[in-house]
Amino acid sequence: MREIGVEELRYLARGAAILGAGGGGDPYIGRLVAEQALREHGPVLAVEPHEVPDDALVAGIGMIGAPTVMVEKLPSGTEAVTAFRTLQRELGRPITHVLPIEVGGMNSLAPFPVAAALGLPVLDADCMGRAFPMVQMVVCTLDGVPAKPLAVADEKGNSVVLDVLDNHWAERLARSAAVRMGCTAVLCSFPMSGAQARGTVIPRTLTRAARLGRLVEQARRDHADPCAAVADHLGGRVLFTGKVAGVLRENDPGFARGEALLEGSGAHDGSRFRLAFQNEHLVATLDDVVVASVPDLICVLEADGEPVPGERLRYGQRVVVVGAPCHPRWRTPEGLALVGPSAFGYPHGYEPLGPA
Amino acid sequence: MREIGVEELRYLARGAAILGAGGGGDPYIGRLVAEQALREHGPVLAVEPHEVPDDALVAGIGMIGAPTVMVEKLPSGTEAVTAFRTLQRELGRPITHVLPIEVGGMNSLAPFPVAAALGLPVLDADCMGRAFPMVQMVVCTLDGVPAKPLAVADEKGNSVVLDVLDNHWAERLARSAAVRMGCTAVLCSFPMSGAQARGTVIPRTLTRAARLGRLVEQARRDHADPCAAVADHLGGRVLFTGKVAGVLRENDPGFARGEALLEGSGAHDGSRFRLAFQNEHLVATLDDVVVASVPDLICVLEADGEPVPGERLRYGQRVVVVGAPCHPRWRTPEGLALVGPSAFGYPHGYEPLGPA
Repeated sequence: MREIGVEELRYLARGAAILGAGGGGDPYIGRLVAEQALREHGPVLAVEPHEVPDDALVAGIGMIGAPTVMVEKLPSGTEAVTAFRTLQRELGRPITHVLPIEVGGMNSLAPFPVAAALGLPVLDADCMGRAFPMVQMVVCTLDGVPAKPLAVADEKGNSVVLDVLDNHWAERLARSAAVRMGCTAVLCSFPMSGAQARGTVIPRTLTRAARLGRLVEQARRDHADPCAAVADHLGGRVLFTGKVAGVLRENDPGFARGEALLEGSGAHDGSRFRLAFQNEHLVATLDDVVVASVPDLICVLEADGEPVPGERLRYGQRVVVVGAPCHPRWRTPEGLALVGPSAFGYPHGYEPLGPA
Repeated sequence: MREIGVEELRYLARGAAILGAGGGGDPYIGRLVAEQALREHGPVLAVEPHEVPDDALVAGIGMIGAPTVMVEKLPSGTEAVTAFRTLQRELGRPITHVLPIEVGGMNSLAPFPVAAALGLPVLDADCMGRAFPMVQMVVCTLDGVPAKPLAVADEKGNSVVLDVLDNHWAERLARSAAVRMGCTAVLCSFPMSGAQARGTVIPRTLTRAARLGRLVEQARRDHADPCAAVADHLGGRVLFTGKVAGVLRENDPGFARGEALLEGSGAHDGSRFRLAFQNEHLVATLDDVVVASVPDLICVLEADGEPVPGERLRYGQRVVVVGAPCHPRWRTPEGLALVGPSAFGYPHGYEPLGPA
């Protein structure tokens, strides 16, 4: 149990943007919203899963939609509270703890405005260990914990409560609501007891993100290579160094889908690198050979270790691409069925990524 | 107050298909679902608005989606009860009366399975006096009666509760849910007190539909012209007689949109007639001149007076098109702003349609 204040948010946001693998929304915006809430209401208590009582009522909070849209359509800061209150009313009893659904991009910070405003603790944990684009892509699905009932709210004051057949239907109906709300909205879902939460969530991922964010700063101070430090810390490796030669983007409209083409420099001079993304970076190919793939993390950084959210990728940027292993649960047959290449329609098999 | 049994459903369904102006879903399917419920549970009590107590809790029921999809994707018969129960749970007290949102196509019959199964009376009334394609297109909107909270349910067991800013947002979010549920779903909405209902709904429209259905049968027995009899009874006129030369359809995907081209015969020999539709027939042109337009009714009949639902229009059909005046409330400036030509994006002004 520890307090998270404004100071730590900066590290947390950076580390989460790395773990977000391009997705989860621009952590800069997420940080501003969370910072404002913390300045207004004071620091937020982060508790570890083992500190949560059995009979607690935990709920996950996160943005849903296309991060590209969020570049122009900023959150109002109230939609998370609306989603939370809507779900709480549906459940008929107080939610005692909030939880980031994913530890990626601004979504790691999505529960903070609610926690700060309502004086609730945040779980130092998440349901993915990274960011994935779809609601059902959580360890909760592997453990039979339903997303329902779930609430979706927008910044205008609309809210929706869903009672769904399964977590795949949660994704379909929450996504269609989010699209109609303007391609971004906030989700409050996966209500579970403290005992259930302990049995499914991935612990200490906020701590992990903050540590990663600090490590980048430390490497800079030490005149070390921050990108290599990140790869090393995550047990992965640098996949590519080069320049963005082109980005193809479409809003489909519930996701930011597309492809980025990179041209190599240094050790990769003359090579071509492709990144396919659906909010998160899904597959990386080097000269048409797959070198990293979901569920492993593909993270795009600037040379100084600053993560580049997918929607900020642009022509001419010089970047370093780091690949890192995903949480071990995603490497099981059930995990791969849910979030592996085939779950995204790719024909290639999954090759676990490791250190260089 | 009177009982509606299986016998009357037949007339009601036919009359409602005429008042549906091409939309509201195939009344044949609606009749089968309602008939089965009546055979199982007995007749349904129809009450007039003035018979409803002030403190009654009334809710509207209707299908939402693209009637073209319903040709293949039949309702299960349970989704209306699911939508009803979902809304009732949200309201926290028993709904005492159900009401067709529109008196058109199968939607006039949509409340019957719920009323029969739960032993509730149906209001002999509706909120349009015809069928229109969108949720906000009801007299309730003119009277400031909100659609919210509203429930949408599908035949698979998914349900959604919406809390929305206004009736236009009700349309947007209910439509997107219906689309994701497979382009058809059931809506339970416009919860209102008995006093509110009396002040807004259009009374005795079920009676009107049944009378219209009987009139067609009577005209046939009398060897009279059933289409002329319908036009006469509705205070309208026959707009065109001819053959369907082509139908262009698209699911957009929440509606059945398109255009039908008709070639004249008899008095209209050599003339071309166009029908533009969005579920309901919106605009009719005779040799490129608008001869009827929303909010007035444009009804397509076979020569024997049997109505043709829009989704059943097909090449080669010989049809009679009848135009009829809408309810007077739609001819006010506020009514026209909500359901007139401009509400559907048409540039032409509204010319009230009358008898020949």
